[in-house]
Amino acid sequence: MFKRFRGAGAAIDLLLGRCSPLQRMQRLPSEQASGRVLSQDILSPVSLPGFDRAAMDGFAVRSGETKGAKPNAPAYVKNFLPMRAGMPVPSDFDAVVMSEDCQDRGTTLEITAQLHAYKNVSRVGEDIAAGEKVFSEGHTLRPPDVAMLSALGIGEVWVYERPRVVVIPTGENLIPIGQRALRAGEAYEINGLMTGLYAEKWGAIASRTEIVSADEDQIREAISSHADADMLIIIGGAAIGDKDYVPRVLEEMGELFVHGVRLQPGKPTALGVVAGKPVVCLPGYPVAALSDLYLFVRPALQKIGHRTDRQPRVSATLARKIASRPNYLSIVRVTLKDGQAEPIMVSGAGILSSVARADGFVVVPEETEGLEAGETVEVELFD
Amino acid sequence: MFKRFRGAGAAIDLLLGRCSPLQRMQRLPSEQASGRVLSQDILSPVSLPGFDRAAMDGFAVRSGETKGAKPNAPAYVKNFLPMRAGMPVPSDFDAVVMSEDCQDRGTTLEITAQLHAYKNVSRVGEDIAAGEKVFSEGHTLRPPDVAMLSALGIGEVWVYERPRVVVIPTGENLIPIGQRALRAGEAYEINGLMTGLYAEKWGAIASRTEIVSADEDQIREAISSHADADMLIIIGGAAIGDKDYVPRVLEEMGELFVHGVRLQPGKPTALGVVAGKPVVCLPGYPVAALSDLYLFVRPALQKIGHRTDRQPRVSATLARKIASRPNYLSIVRVTLKDGQAEPIMVSGAGILSSVARADGFVVVPEETEGLEAGETVEVELFD
Repeated sequence: MFKRFRGAGAAIDLLLGRCSPLQRMQRLPSEQASGRVLSQDILSPVSLPGFDRAAMDGFAVRSGETKGAKPNAPAYVKNFLPMRAGMPVPSDFDAVVMSEDCQDRGTTLEITAQLHAYKNVSRVGEDIAAGEKVFSEGHTLRPPDVAMLSALGIGEVWVYERPRVVVIPTGENLIPIGQRALRAGEAYEINGLMTGLYAEKWGAIASRTEIVSADEDQIREAISSHADADMLIIIGGAAIGDKDYVPRVLEEMGELFVHGVRLQPGKPTALGVVAGKPVVCLPGYPVAALSDLYLFVRPALQKIGHRTDRQPRVSATLARKIASRPNYLSIVRVTLKDGQAEPIMVSGAGILSSVARADGFVVVPEETEGLEAGETVEVELFD
Repeated sequence: MFKRFRGAGAAIDLLLGRCSPLQRMQRLPSEQASGRVLSQDILSPVSLPGFDRAAMDGFAVRSGETKGAKPNAPAYVKNFLPMRAGMPVPSDFDAVVMSEDCQDRGTTLEITAQLHAYKNVSRVGEDIAAGEKVFSEGHTLRPPDVAMLSALGIGEVWVYERPRVVVIPTGENLIPIGQRALRAGEAYEINGLMTGLYAEKWGAIASRTEIVSADEDQIREAISSHADADMLIIIGGAAIGDKDYVPRVLEEMGELFVHGVRLQPGKPTALGVVAGKPVVCLPGYPVAALSDLYLFVRPALQKIGHRTDRQPRVSATLARKIASRPNYLSIVRVTLKDGQAEPIMVSGAGILSSVARADGFVVVPEETEGLEAGETVEVELFD
């Protein structure tokens, strides 16, 4: 039996409780910082605009001289200057009259609209004042934000480093991908690849070790030699009985706070901490590993990496009833078509083809025993 | 006046009508193909599993010999073989009895459950049969799909090339970012950077030319020298009057099918085709350029790049009324908090700070004159 069997929600909370937002920072050119998380508030070094700026094509004028001007009673002014949008308005003018509202009569300008002060003028600092906070620490920079930094002349920013994740695949009869043809009983080690790709997609820097055999000493050695990682992900070895070599090692080297989760698929999952760093042990079955990646690894990496981006999801109508195991959180793969979510019913967490066919998954909460056809469900899209 | 003034929906349709999905392909190692679009159907070269595989730990047995077995009337069999999940089941056995349902008595196995044929056995090809279609042309590969390809021993795949986008910033008084301090009337050229970052995010390979001055000959030259691009994006020069140098060039070199869009912000937009390639001319004001990027460039790049990923969005309640210009499609920036979308009311498409503060935008359709407080709206998130 599992010694630290937990509900899925409790297991996630326990894991997140052991994950700390990374404090290591790095300085990057702003142009390379799109998608990264600021580790400092950004105050503007300058005002934007840096000068009173014409907002329209027309003529710079003195607003006081346009008093009462209208089409049948124009004002005639002698002080005016042609302007294009974006040009600085000299300090002896305070408004811009649009071309439509005036007529250039050579030495005088005929104006048919009264202007208030700073009409059609973007004033110094109107967009941003010098010293104003533009972005807060923790903000993830998007392309327009990078443009903004550049507009302010901020060429470099401090961002949080990306979390370092080390993926350790374990097990017997696993062959590195493509190394040679498989013999009966063997399989390519694909979970490590999938896990690394997701970790990178979710903002981490991922590396993968060689395949480690199902042996406590070797697992211990693999964990020790990657103590500088921000998260370790071990694949396999968290079943029950004599195959739980990974949980045993975690217990000995640090702390094992979850072993076994009421999650379907994904029951043989273990969570622990070694040297202050979270260790997530995924099941060896790819479909179960995938559930764990979305349920445990994604939120943990978000917390460590200061990220808040949302998992893409859509609402859909459930096309068929889903039966689920009571008291277990179930992850049900679905295909989407015309707003309908069709559950993919397959037995066996090893059925990879069901993932290839799936557009996303529906989470069936622990309290329910399933979902009815016709219910509206949120489909988390595989990204 | 604009000569080819269009509604926003019509303009988008016209543009998409001129965009063709790219036919150039490239061969990539499967491990590097995550996020790319398959240009061929993938048929499995092998069966998965490639052998009858034990799905549980236990013993391989002959199902016929377990007939009628139950706890109080066990079957005793002499032909059995210890099995671990994943091991091949030899051909003289056809089922696996779980450890819980049997007792190893040395030369005999005591079995307390009747097994049907292939109980706890994953049969050859159960997941995927040799020759079966695994993915269709046009599928965007996700990490588990790459894992699947690897599991099947498919080391390389054909994918569509990424569209090549060339961004041409135009205008006067624009200074390359960070080149030197600005003088009054000058601004850093930030739209090209923003556009390039988005194009890359949306699956393209983007490059940026030097800033081209507002001169027809030079625009013509810049377009000609990038005729191998799959899309040209020109920034600025699509206003009306003597500043519409880009539309004039498009008309002369190819076709100009949109000049001016009922879009707020984003009115001075032009769309055309030169040498069969779509040309999108964005307004020079950053906020208007951003509207255009989401409205025109994103769907166009999706079509060219065979992509179908959805723009992340969330539903929210509108915190305040939005008034919008009749017959114009409006893009209203909002902040999100506790499920409420708060419109950011600023005048001027140049107000970059409003984007820095915005989480996303709400699209107000042309037919409506605004949205009421309390309405449920879809917020497209700036990504």
